[in-house]
Amino acid sequence: RQRAAFLPPPPLLQAMPAIAPLTIRRPGAHPQDTPPSDRGIVTSWRDFRAATAQDEEVSVGGIKIGFPNGRPTFKTSDGAYALSIGLAFQEDFGGFPSVSRRNGEDRGNFNSFTSNSRRLRIPFTFRYKDWVANVTPDFGHGNNDGQVGLYEANINYAGLHNTVLTVGYFQPRVTEEDAESSNDFMFVERPAIIDLVRTIAANDARFSVGGMHYADRWWIGSYFTGQEWGNRNERGYYASIGDNITDSQTGGTFRVAGRPIVTKDVDMHVGISSIASFKVAKSATGRSYTFAQRPEINLGESILMTTGAINNVAQLWSAGPEFALRWKRLLVKAEYYRIGVERSGGLPSLGFQGWYGAVGYTLFGNPRRYSIQEGGFLAPGVSPDQEFDPLHDRWGALEIAARYSVADLNSRIGDADGIRGGQQTVWATGLSWYPNRYFKFMLDYNHFIVSRSSATVNLYGRNGDAVVGRIQSTF
Amino acid sequence: RQRAAFLPPPPLLQAMPAIAPLTIRRPGAHPQDTPPSDRGIVTSWRDFRAATAQDEEVSVGGIKIGFPNGRPTFKTSDGAYALSIGLAFQEDFGGFPSVSRRNGEDRGNFNSFTSNSRRLRIPFTFRYKDWVANVTPDFGHGNNDGQVGLYEANINYAGLHNTVLTVGYFQPRVTEEDAESSNDFMFVERPAIIDLVRTIAANDARFSVGGMHYADRWWIGSYFTGQEWGNRNERGYYASIGDNITDSQTGGTFRVAGRPIVTKDVDMHVGISSIASFKVAKSATGRSYTFAQRPEINLGESILMTTGAINNVAQLWSAGPEFALRWKRLLVKAEYYRIGVERSGGLPSLGFQGWYGAVGYTLFGNPRRYSIQEGGFLAPGVSPDQEFDPLHDRWGALEIAARYSVADLNSRIGDADGIRGGQQTVWATGLSWYPNRYFKFMLDYNHFIVSRSSATVNLYGRNGDAVVGRIQSTF
Amino acid sequence: RQRAAFLPPPPLLQAMPAIAPLTIRRPGAHPQDTPPSDRGIVTSWRDFRAATAQDEEVSVGGIKIGFPNGRPTFKTSDGAYALSIGLAFQEDFGGFPSVSRRNGEDRGNFNSFTSNSRRLRIPFTFRYKDWVANVTPDFGHGNNDGQVGLYEANINYAGLHNTVLTVGYFQPRVTEEDAESSNDFMFVERPAIIDLVRTIAANDARFSVGGMHYADRWWIGSYFTGQEWGNRNERGYYASIGDNITDSQTGGTFRVAGRPIVTKDVDMHVGISSIASFKVAKSATGRSYTFAQRPEINLGESILMTTGAINNVAQLWSAGPEFALRWKRLLVKAEYYRIGVERSGGLPSLGFQGWYGAVGYTLFGNPRRYSIQEGGFLAPGVSPDQEFDPLHDRWGALEIAARYSVADLNSRIGDADGIRGGQQTVWATGLSWYPNRYFKFMLDYNHFIVSRSSATVNLYGRNGDAVVGRIQSTF
Repeated sequence: RQRAAFLPPPPLLQAMPAIAPLTIRRPGAHPQDTPPSDRGIVTSWRDFRAATAQDEEVSVGGIKIGFPNGRPTFKTSDGAYALSIGLAFQEDFGGFPSVSRRNGEDRGNFNSFTSNSRRLRIPFTFRYKDWVANVTPDFGHGNNDGQVGLYEANINYAGLHNTVLTVGYFQPRVTEEDAESSNDFMFVERPAIIDLVRTIAANDARFSVGGMHYADRWWIGSYFTGQEWGNRNERGYYASIGDNITDSQTGGTFRVAGRPIVTKDVDMHVGISSIASFKVAKSATGRSYTFAQRPEINLGESILMTTGAINNVAQLWSAGPEFALRWKRLLVKAEYYRIGVERSGGLPSLGFQGWYGAVGYTLFGNPRRYSIQEGGFLAPGVSPDQEFDPLHDRWGALEIAARYSVADLNSRIGDADGIRGGQQTVWATGLSWYPNRYFKFMLDYNHFIVSRSSATVNLYGRNGDAVVGRIQSTF
Repeated sequence: RQRAAFLPPPPLLQAMPAIAPLTIRRPGAHPQDTPPSDRGIVTSWRDFRAATAQDEEVSVGGIKIGFPNGRPTFKTSDGAYALSIGLAFQEDFGGFPSVSRRNGEDRGNFNSFTSNSRRLRIPFTFRYKDWVANVTPDFGHGNNDGQVGLYEANINYAGLHNTVLTVGYFQPRVTEEDAESSNDFMFVERPAIIDLVRTIAANDARFSVGGMHYADRWWIGSYFTGQEWGNRNERGYYASIGDNITDSQTGGTFRVAGRPIVTKDVDMHVGISSIASFKVAKSATGRSYTFAQRPEINLGESILMTTGAINNVAQLWSAGPEFALRWKRLLVKAEYYRIGVERSGGLPSLGFQGWYGAVGYTLFGNPRRYSIQEGGFLAPGVSPDQEFDPLHDRWGALEIAARYSVADLNSRIGDADGIRGGQQTVWATGLSWYPNRYFKFMLDYNHFIVSRSSATVNLYGRNGDAVVGRIQSTF
Repeated sequence: RQRAAFLPPPPLLQAMPAIAPLTIRRPGAHPQDTPPSDRGIVTSWRDFRAATAQDEEVSVGGIKIGFPNGRPTFKTSDGAYALSIGLAFQEDFGGFPSVSRRNGEDRGNFNSFTSNSRRLRIPFTFRYKDWVANVTPDFGHGNNDGQVGLYEANINYAGLHNTVLTVGYFQPRVTEEDAESSNDFMFVERPAIIDLVRTIAANDARFSVGGMHYADRWWIGSYFTGQEWGNRNERGYYASIGDNITDSQTGGTFRVAGRPIVTKDVDMHVGISSIASFKVAKSATGRSYTFAQRPEINLGESILMTTGAINNVAQLWSAGPEFALRWKRLLVKAEYYRIGVERSGGLPSLGFQGWYGAVGYTLFGNPRRYSIQEGGFLAPGVSPDQEFDPLHDRWGALEIAARYSVADLNSRIGDADGIRGGQQTVWATGLSWYPNRYFKFMLDYNHFIVSRSSATVNLYGRNGDAVVGRIQSTF
């Protein structure tokens, strides 16, 4: 290969140079036909070099450049130095055709039509041998667009086999839904219970120290976690608590998952996820925590389900099982999580819970496949010869999906020391079209029913409908 | 060409490799001597490949890299994958030598010297064949620097001839002044009426769905538009309305322009622009809209001309003619726009208006030329052999310009249901020096006269003077 | 060299292509083994070309790419066009094991454990010949992370020998500590007096017009300065004053430094730094200024030492001597600064002061060396054959350091017109480990004693301890 740079490349390379993969990070039955991940890419230097040796790239005077998985990457031939620049672009638009109201309660912010830049991340990955730094600005986060923040900023050591050790602001993964890249989603949002669980001590841009390891049949990861990036800033970004915090949160995550059955037509995934906040952040008013969730749409609408601030919180924890099964073009998923709130001052514990069941069918294009690095499922794939081209009767990939999701934030509602956060049920149906690997168009319809909660816009229970579209581009 | 990578490049290429254009997006009599645009670049894959075939770049193992128009660009040889990273850097500094005051009214914020990072945009453009995603962070927007936001984030399909279809946050173009790139401006700011008009439903980072098409002699574009990025965020960035919006704005733009006369010495441009807000955003206080404008300088100074919040707004619209004429080194421009405000609740309609006339003369360097893709004029050009080099008596390009601009926000001021927003007249003179294509230094002097308005700092009418410099770098 | 691209590169290049330097910006006894700077890189076109001619890079069809100093750089072969993208990543975590309290005063925000993204800068440098534009977003600034801002955005002319002329938002350098890149620090924070001095009219993202020149034995620089970026924004970022400023600050810096003794074992540095605010920003409440400083840790904790707002400030100035001496692996540094506050309205002047002495010893790795471009010392270096590799008994570089630092903000405390800002003494010890040039891990322990001040959380004098770690990655 040494001399490859100085000879004409083979004809195939000329025709489709970028289809040749630089890495084998997300392999499967049809590698390299699914969207790139929304994360910085961390592989060991050995794997990075090995990938290099396999691919079609040409070494030019000690430097290699290419578009592995579509992501522009520049590196020295030995892979010691590398920079890659990616994109995770997701913009939503839509509204709420109908939301019920009773007894003259406040209408709430349910726009008939509005828009939201849901994620606009540009991952920068810098490598020196087995050390990798990821910095990913996010120009689209927040429930209403208009703020700029950080998705991740961490340092990784990848010198151990199939293992990544991480320190810094990171998204430790718990639950199967959270393990998936947002670029691969069946619906525009995760089920409510998943967001409630992961926000306890994980979520985006969480200060983390820990690691994950994967093998062909199993995945394990555990992280000690602190506050979210910006959490202590009054003008904060994710879930701002303010600058008067006298003791920040600490917590941790643990997840183990496996694939007991793997055949050509079947992938079975089972797992257990758990998360805890050992102590929540303390301010002048003590240690409190608020659970709240939107109706599985994020267009900046009012929250109907919330516990309000729960005071005297000692610990939070959540745990539950993951299950998913692919059979040919069909994928079925279900997860259940229980949330516990231990309180100080002699107050009784609280218990919340939620579950969901989802089913997706890939009408055309390649069906969803399993990623062993993520311990979860990838998006449907579009092979180069399937890319949208109506003149040649090529249409990319299309998936239809349905989901039933329940989150219950009521606990001891008959007692004075109980909490009425409401119970939310969402029926969601979705359509996802991938004209090629790098672009995606989604259309979701949600019907939601929320019982009365501590939210001032939901005093009597409400239900409604939402229609939302998403445009996505990922490199 | 196939073997070009493997032979020494021709001597010319060695001497000035980047002067060779990668694209022919902004052609003219002297192509590639004007500043790059401040926008993400969208061309069809076919054009992108054709441009590639023409230019002097060398294919290396399936990858091409270069600096077309100065903008670093990386792509596969077939142009299927590409990334480019640009820069639109404009910083202003200056102040207000004198601003009149009467009857002890508040002085207002008219600094004798201050500075403002007016635009600091880094356009990232990702391409896969005919699909192009633009994301442009802006580290310099806002009337007082200190906020970071978004200039554009959109997905484009360029597979149809000379046509770009766009969805996402975008700046749909209305009026000839708005059609020009800010890098090409004669003065540091647009005339007041232009900013008043385009803000109705277009402006930066507006959610848009639509398209534009151009030919050698005409240009047409139309977009459905929603809210601006961040508009619903309380800590918003452009024109924040807040998160209590229960119904977002919708609107649209339509512009058609042509070049009836094209000779070596003459370019005549005529056009019609129109814009409307079908409904303005609704909050708890109903549907209201505020017109306001600075005196054609943006150093964070007080606004002297504003209607204050106009309540019960049903629709807004504006329309008017565009005219421009180049004769050799002289460019004359004039536009007039009428703004209509339809109100609900039986309130009578309101009418505002404005116009400007501007003249620019390129003392040395190449004169301004017409861009058919923009339907407007480009900056003066600097050929490589004209670049600033005092030892060889080369001085780049220099333009002098003058402008008379009026905006009138008074309507029915004799009646109780009228609005007194004030009338602002600005006499502006400007000097723009381009040492080369990529750098520009401007010095403007403005004299402004504003009749009394709804602004608390302008109760009796005020006038004043401003001096402002700008440094600009664009790639 | 012309044909180099078309022959196999020499074996050494294959083995370690990026070790070969592209520039010689930061030379020394062991060039290219210290962390890259946190700044945009400005060299003259001539030097840039000369560096190119020396290095091992290979010209490919008119384009060169490489990782000089680890920073990805793309340029035309003649160096006329270039883009580089860097990284300055510093994240802190730790807390305050003990902070004394008396008489029931407010505890203050002294977290037992928290984290802060201290600096997350991505420097973009665009070049056209001798003109260079730097834009550096900062996703980690602020005392509590959660805000995104700007570190620098300036235009430079580098056409004069060993000279850089700059206009725009920039960090003009005063004091030896400030002259160093933050990537090279012995401790996580500068001594308090240095931050107090440089904030008067320099500091990050200060609007600046000026230049610097260096030679082998001396360094000189002077800048006129205005406001900081975002200073006039109410939601500002660095030291927000608000948008009601009617007259912005102006000021200036002057620094001259030299190396009277240079031998293999000894570098002696002497210098004088001075800074002044000719007028401080004026708001509705007049011209006021606040001195405040954290206890040389920046985890968002409460400020114990502050003057509160000093009113009627006419001018501020500071000046003092710099001294540093390297003897083999030992570096000793000391600086003293006096601060003067001239007040209007017949109020007497105020005087503050501070000093520090620091000592660092490089246990293993290459000792700190002098940078003539910065007029200050670089970090310890790690040669390629010293990089962390425990299997081969290689450990990178390790430095131990100690510092004694005093800042005194008391002036005329016996008089009614005096100011009691408090006196702060910090004993700091630190450990810095560099596994290679690009990564660094720090652990600092601080003990601080602060006499009573104008801060509401320090009414009686307090002392305490802090432990903080930092992870750093720089390209």
